[in-house]
Amino acid sequence: MTDKLIIFDTTLRDGEQSPGASMTRDEKLRIARQLERLRVDVIEAGFAASSNGDFEAVKTIADAIKDSTICSLSRANDRDISRAAEALKGANSGRIHTFIATSPLHMEKKLRMTPDQVFEQAKQSVRFARNLVGDVEFSPEDGYRSDMDFLCRILEAVIAEGAGTINVPDTVGYAVPELYGEFIRTLRERIPNSDKAIWSVHCHNDLGMAVANSLAGVKIGGARQVECTINGLGERAGNCSLEEVVMAVKTRRDYFGLDVGIDTSHIVAASRMVSQTTGFVVQPNKAVVGANAFAHASGIHQDGVLKARDTYEIMRAEDVGWTTNKIVLGKLSGRNAFKQRLQDLGVSLESETEINSAFAKFKELADRKSEIFDEDILALVSDESVTSEKEQYGFVSMSQHSETGERPHAAVVFTVEGKEVSTQSDGNGPVDASLKAIESYVKSGAEMVLYSVNAISGSTESQGEVTVRLQNSGRVVNGVGSDPDIVVASAKAYLSALNKLQSKSDRVAAQG
Amino acid sequence: MTDKLIIFDTTLRDGEQSPGASMTRDEKLRIARQLERLRVDVIEAGFAASSNGDFEAVKTIADAIKDSTICSLSRANDRDISRAAEALKGANSGRIHTFIATSPLHMEKKLRMTPDQVFEQAKQSVRFARNLVGDVEFSPEDGYRSDMDFLCRILEAVIAEGAGTINVPDTVGYAVPELYGEFIRTLRERIPNSDKAIWSVHCHNDLGMAVANSLAGVKIGGARQVECTINGLGERAGNCSLEEVVMAVKTRRDYFGLDVGIDTSHIVAASRMVSQTTGFVVQPNKAVVGANAFAHASGIHQDGVLKARDTYEIMRAEDVGWTTNKIVLGKLSGRNAFKQRLQDLGVSLESETEINSAFAKFKELADRKSEIFDEDILALVSDESVTSEKEQYGFVSMSQHSETGERPHAAVVFTVEGKEVSTQSDGNGPVDASLKAIESYVKSGAEMVLYSVNAISGSTESQGEVTVRLQNSGRVVNGVGSDPDIVVASAKAYLSALNKLQSKSDRVAAQG
Repeated sequence: MTDKLIIFDTTLRDGEQSPGASMTRDEKLRIARQLERLRVDVIEAGFAASSNGDFEAVKTIADAIKDSTICSLSRANDRDISRAAEALKGANSGRIHTFIATSPLHMEKKLRMTPDQVFEQAKQSVRFARNLVGDVEFSPEDGYRSDMDFLCRILEAVIAEGAGTINVPDTVGYAVPELYGEFIRTLRERIPNSDKAIWSVHCHNDLGMAVANSLAGVKIGGARQVECTINGLGERAGNCSLEEVVMAVKTRRDYFGLDVGIDTSHIVAASRMVSQTTGFVVQPNKAVVGANAFAHASGIHQDGVLKARDTYEIMRAEDVGWTTNKIVLGKLSGRNAFKQRLQDLGVSLESETEINSAFAKFKELADRKSEIFDEDILALVSDESVTSEKEQYGFVSMSQHSETGERPHAAVVFTVEGKEVSTQSDGNGPVDASLKAIESYVKSGAEMVLYSVNAISGSTESQGEVTVRLQNSGRVVNGVGSDPDIVVASAKAYLSALNKLQSKSDRVAAQG
Repeated sequence: MTDKLIIFDTTLRDGEQSPGASMTRDEKLRIARQLERLRVDVIEAGFAASSNGDFEAVKTIADAIKDSTICSLSRANDRDISRAAEALKGANSGRIHTFIATSPLHMEKKLRMTPDQVFEQAKQSVRFARNLVGDVEFSPEDGYRSDMDFLCRILEAVIAEGAGTINVPDTVGYAVPELYGEFIRTLRERIPNSDKAIWSVHCHNDLGMAVANSLAGVKIGGARQVECTINGLGERAGNCSLEEVVMAVKTRRDYFGLDVGIDTSHIVAASRMVSQTTGFVVQPNKAVVGANAFAHASGIHQDGVLKARDTYEIMRAEDVGWTTNKIVLGKLSGRNAFKQRLQDLGVSLESETEINSAFAKFKELADRKSEIFDEDILALVSDESVTSEKEQYGFVSMSQHSETGERPHAAVVFTVEGKEVSTQSDGNGPVDASLKAIESYVKSGAEMVLYSVNAISGSTESQGEVTVRLQNSGRVVNGVGSDPDIVVASAKAYLSALNKLQSKSDRVAAQG
């Protein structure tokens, strides 16, 4: 047992599986770079065998990231495992994470397999994986609701086959800290070769206890790896939140006595990047990364007497990357300053062409807005059109008008495979009118299931960032667009969502 | 010790203290009615002595709510306690909750008092309160960071003086479940008369563990009251979330073995009401009440195979008030159907005039929008102008235009103390232009610290709900406006925030 807690981030795998959170390869790479900057120990980059897109994303990240171990999820079969190994070939340090369900309910209803069949398949899969890579993790899906005797039998076998990490998921978020901690401890005590593996926890937040459950698995159970996601992103109520679990271990070092390698000063930037990329807002009262978490840092001054800081604060806002002076660039800033700022923010654009394109957008924005904040820059580069020249739809220009008593109207010009199209429509409001104008040509038939806007840096002088979530034939995508004009941002977001709806291929779903 | 867990909701007190979450008396009453409908045992309605507005709010709620105990917070002094008792006079069942800080840091830096002085003041205050009401709760502020010997001494004394409930706050969110549970247990074991009081937990979520800490206080410590808020609203990272703690106790009845009196089917409506009133968004991956918490219930269909429901669900969406068919009314619906729906949603408008005004707005909306959802109705009635005829500023009409390459422009007509004013301005976008137009006349000098929009029922055909947060001279207010036209909704929200900035009086801050 080591006194270091391994941080295993699965934002790009379990987080991305959340309906509406799917990301492009480029977006994933950008987030992976930020995770590397955070010094995450293991990055689960995707589920290589689930689709060609996921394979490419895992491969791209494995090739680019050097400081973190890169992991691919894989079902417990030879084909999946081979695909994962292939995607990980370029990694400095690669891990295959294979899983199979072990709870009676999941074995019967989902797998339609007997426990003995599951046992054999788990064993063979770990053996197969170990022949391809040295670092293999095994998860019994829905492990916390599995039979203890069966779980001991299967985990002993996979450790014997060489699984170096054993992860025990509370797949449905049913656990309570004391019970989950004891569950892990019992497993470690009963399994003869348990000391040959590092034990890992993977908790979901359905009852609001994912962080406490994970930490009970560590403190009571002796686990030394926590699986988590930025902002707690993940299906349903999400996963254990990286920022909360890391800050709890750091703030309560007196109790946990463990080291974590995370550079916490990049936490807020990572949170914003994930929120802006997926369109999943972070509520103001979210721990560590919410706008109110450190009220003074977000420009809010406390009513009444200003009290000694440590009277009410157990963490320092600066330690997690909240900065007080957020004005960074203006219209006189040059290309080098811009490029440097991108690097400081953890954004690496892949080519000089992309930097030029982003810089042009930056200058255009600076003409309209005197103070450019970090958030503006992040929004600028997460804007689809910067990184993808080959998208089907692209925004060109628009005009819109609304007046009390009249029906709002909008005219939009956009490109379809490079060719300009002009459309117009009325609607319930100017945003509705502009999206209807686009839809009148595209005829996607998609249903809008979410529309939200955030002013990126507080006031309406700043850029508005719009998220549009579309659903079509069982697929859900989020498009994000930003512009100081909220109606323009909405049109961009809609086109971005349509592009994603076009490009996203079907893939296998997995849950852990 | 009883086998019932008392749910003490402090949304209207500790929740409302969150910067930007302040509510009007009418808004508080509406939420109190919803809390009564939820069958909350104790409603902390405010802090009567902190301002005249708070006094009025506590009094109004104490007079109107009959099924729940109504509580007012109060510092440990005769004046505060008398004000609280006065505000609670009309209550069926009233409670005074008095507090004083007991941690070395708070006593020295905030109170500038010695432990002996704090001890005497606590004792005398509880004695004074018990002469006014039968039900007195005492909280040692920052209790979890207090010296155990001192805490035992002071709590024994206040129990002897008749405090029937002893609440141990983790004011700064520093606790870990095991330690917090043992802290409560130690107190109960060491204090000779501890069985004369019901023990209560009050946890903050700074490290993401408020729910688990509260439940450890219950399970390990033997507490039988949990203090919590809807959506976990509260300062910084907020308080223990009511919906999470209640659903955890219900879902894991096998472990906790406790009854809770809450009617969970009103949880989602309560969550929306609090979110719409305060403008604090609920993130999609929030447990129980987030849009993704039960993905199928929010119209999102799972990718891939449709699996047996209990494979991934430990709670039923219906049990917390998610409904699948949310279309409730249309343009042909009559006044009675509308009034009935308001009642079903837990909204009681105070007079027939208010119902008429809301119904007129409903018909106007139904002319523009074919399907009216519960969310639309809630937005309609949380719209400031329904309930407040005497506001300083009121929206009348507007027009706005934007076009690529030109500067966006808006003209707004609004009333100032009943007199119509026309203003216009350009801006970075049409929203910015319309708010600048208003500001050019009002000259509030307020700084905008937050701007956000949510489409109330998913698509842009629905009403947009805009929240504007303004800050001026250390005061922070949220204004909310809704309209199918997002620019109009923004102007309404801005005027609503300006009204609040005018009316909100200074008051004393308290933290628990």
